[in-house]
Amino acid sequence: MIEKLLNENDEKIVFYIADGMGGLPHPDFDKKTEMEYANLPNLDELARKSVLGRSIPVEMGITPGSGPAHLSLFGYDAVKFDIGRGVLEALGVNFPLNRGDVAIRGNFATIDKNRNIVDRRAGRIPNEESFPIVKKLSENIKKIEDIEVSVFPVKEYRFGVVLKGRGLTPCIKDTDPQQVGVPPLEAVSTCENGLKTARIINKFIQMAESLLKEEKKANGMLLRGVSSIPDIQPFSKRYGLLPLALANYPMYKGLARLVGMETPEVGASFQSVIERLKKEWNNYNFFFVHYKWTDKAGEDGDFLKKVKYLEEFDSYLPDVLSLNPSVLVITGDHSTPSLWKGHSWHPNPLLLYSRVAGPDDRQRFTERECKYGYLGQIYARDIMALALANAGKLKKYGA
Amino acid sequence: MIEKLLNENDEKIVFYIADGMGGLPHPDFDKKTEMEYANLPNLDELARKSVLGRSIPVEMGITPGSGPAHLSLFGYDAVKFDIGRGVLEALGVNFPLNRGDVAIRGNFATIDKNRNIVDRRAGRIPNEESFPIVKKLSENIKKIEDIEVSVFPVKEYRFGVVLKGRGLTPCIKDTDPQQVGVPPLEAVSTCENGLKTARIINKFIQMAESLLKEEKKANGMLLRGVSSIPDIQPFSKRYGLLPLALANYPMYKGLARLVGMETPEVGASFQSVIERLKKEWNNYNFFFVHYKWTDKAGEDGDFLKKVKYLEEFDSYLPDVLSLNPSVLVITGDHSTPSLWKGHSWHPNPLLLYSRVAGPDDRQRFTERECKYGYLGQIYARDIMALALANAGKLKKYGA
Repeated sequence: MIEKLLNENDEKIVFYIADGMGGLPHPDFDKKTEMEYANLPNLDELARKSVLGRSIPVEMGITPGSGPAHLSLFGYDAVKFDIGRGVLEALGVNFPLNRGDVAIRGNFATIDKNRNIVDRRAGRIPNEESFPIVKKLSENIKKIEDIEVSVFPVKEYRFGVVLKGRGLTPCIKDTDPQQVGVPPLEAVSTCENGLKTARIINKFIQMAESLLKEEKKANGMLLRGVSSIPDIQPFSKRYGLLPLALANYPMYKGLARLVGMETPEVGASFQSVIERLKKEWNNYNFFFVHYKWTDKAGEDGDFLKKVKYLEEFDSYLPDVLSLNPSVLVITGDHSTPSLWKGHSWHPNPLLLYSRVAGPDDRQRFTERECKYGYLGQIYARDIMALALANAGKLKKYGA
Repeated sequence: MIEKLLNENDEKIVFYIADGMGGLPHPDFDKKTEMEYANLPNLDELARKSVLGRSIPVEMGITPGSGPAHLSLFGYDAVKFDIGRGVLEALGVNFPLNRGDVAIRGNFATIDKNRNIVDRRAGRIPNEESFPIVKKLSENIKKIEDIEVSVFPVKEYRFGVVLKGRGLTPCIKDTDPQQVGVPPLEAVSTCENGLKTARIINKFIQMAESLLKEEKKANGMLLRGVSSIPDIQPFSKRYGLLPLALANYPMYKGLARLVGMETPEVGASFQSVIERLKKEWNNYNFFFVHYKWTDKAGEDGDFLKKVKYLEEFDSYLPDVLSLNPSVLVITGDHSTPSLWKGHSWHPNPLLLYSRVAGPDDRQRFTERECKYGYLGQIYARDIMALALANAGKLKKYGA
């Protein structure tokens, strides 16, 4: 519906996102959440001028990975546009993936002389061992039939493979039998036109095992998540916006590129993200600003570290406000409570600031305050429509 | 699902609707909304005996026109049943539109000697200039082939055309090229059986331009929103109710007639609406009572006028309550904040009164109080089911 209602104007929208923002009350910290324990003066002050609420990342009770969580924030149906593990790994290392390419996630594995799997993760070999092996594969397998092959390291026993060329399809089953004592599965197609891709993948495995036969641990491999970039409508067309995504980590830039956002290189610090935001302010009208460290601390189960990073996130808010955006949305892509040590299904605190956001009366930006906020509990995929409406970028529907 | 659960009884339901009810905090009025600023003793007293909540008119972030907003209130899918601009204009002037008729919205335009458009709104000529022109068209174009043609004035440069007869279809593109310096477009069909309708419309344009050739400003026209009444299930069948709609303005009567409600003529005052409600109390069991002026004041950006009209709306509530309805729903079709000067996407305050409405604890009927209400934030299209349930008109689903 939105596409027919777009109303171009100069108003600027900022999404200021702390990855894994939401938390849980922790028994060791006065039963407070990370946000309640933290000192967040700028967020709290803004909360008093904004409307609050909560955003459910994808569906009730569903813990999303970064892919679906970000697609939802961008206003897309994260269930319809499934992002395969192969694609995600390629995005994560900034691999220049194009539509039609097939990306695969690989695990090195240990196999015995009968090709039965002994260890599905090759003893979790460290980067120092795995990266040279990946390099060997990369240098020795560049083409199979007419298909270009790229192999790249990810982390420890994990690597990625990208196939480029004609007639490829991602409808290939995993070769991981999910157990030891049996050989890896053959790559098998699940659709009509997948024979070529399956053959290429099986040839790749054969060539790779031949190259790795002297390896003690990483002498085999399991391939999973064979996938391609989904055929997704570009953000600019969907919303009539000029979007810029600013993120330190490649995966988030990759996810933003999936929907066609521009993703310039920024430095490793969040300071460099904020500086770039200021520099690019006049060149775009939608800004996705991604802060990663809150999620990392939550995953580590480090409550105080997450508190510290929330405070850092808060400390840069005045810089964002100094640009005077028409609409500012602050939330997370998903919750990452340090008590849970991982992504979770809990709704994220949500703040929407605009001149016409609505009547609210909350005093702080915390999970508990957001419970009483004007926006109520909504789905993350609906935030974009609200942001556009608040920016006057949507015409009336029907007469 | 509801249709299979209907349970007839004598309980009466009233929808008491203030058009454009919801508002926004205004910086010039203590950051209060119109409802917070207003003195609404009857609504506040009823709120203490009712349950409150908020209704999203159509979808999150979507600002509806009157058509979709009312269809939603009546419990229909406003996206599925699109009401074209032509139909809405015909309803707005109380034109007796039947199923199968094709209604068109027209703008007078100024064209030069090469038929290129000079002004798409004919200098926004006032009623005094446009109404005689419409009369001329109406008197001189009564039939084209076997099709009856009616032309009626709307306001200023706007008019309506209705075609009645066999073989008509509304799948005709607008003739408005949306720019000047080019001629109007031909009417073109977008479906297989639209040739006749397109031909009739093009002949109409030709005849009209010939009649208007001496006019200085309104010597051409642009036609838009070619549409027919949607094939919609009658309200009475859908809910097993005998519905009466009472409204001062023709458009709202027209929208109620679209779903088959009876819409008697009432006077120009809201007093006459309330008197008619009392008079008809024993003849129906569903009453849609529409108060228009709150919306008009909001559209004008006149905060204090909206406050005044809310107070008038409040002052008639005791009359409604004196009839002792089993279920009383009070809300708006959409918000019209005077700060925004137009319809908006913000949820409306919602009040549901019945003996079994639920436990609540709110003290006033305002946007902020409704935020904490028992009903939560719901979609307007779900209100009808709640009203029926509260009136004991829905049987158990399943065993």
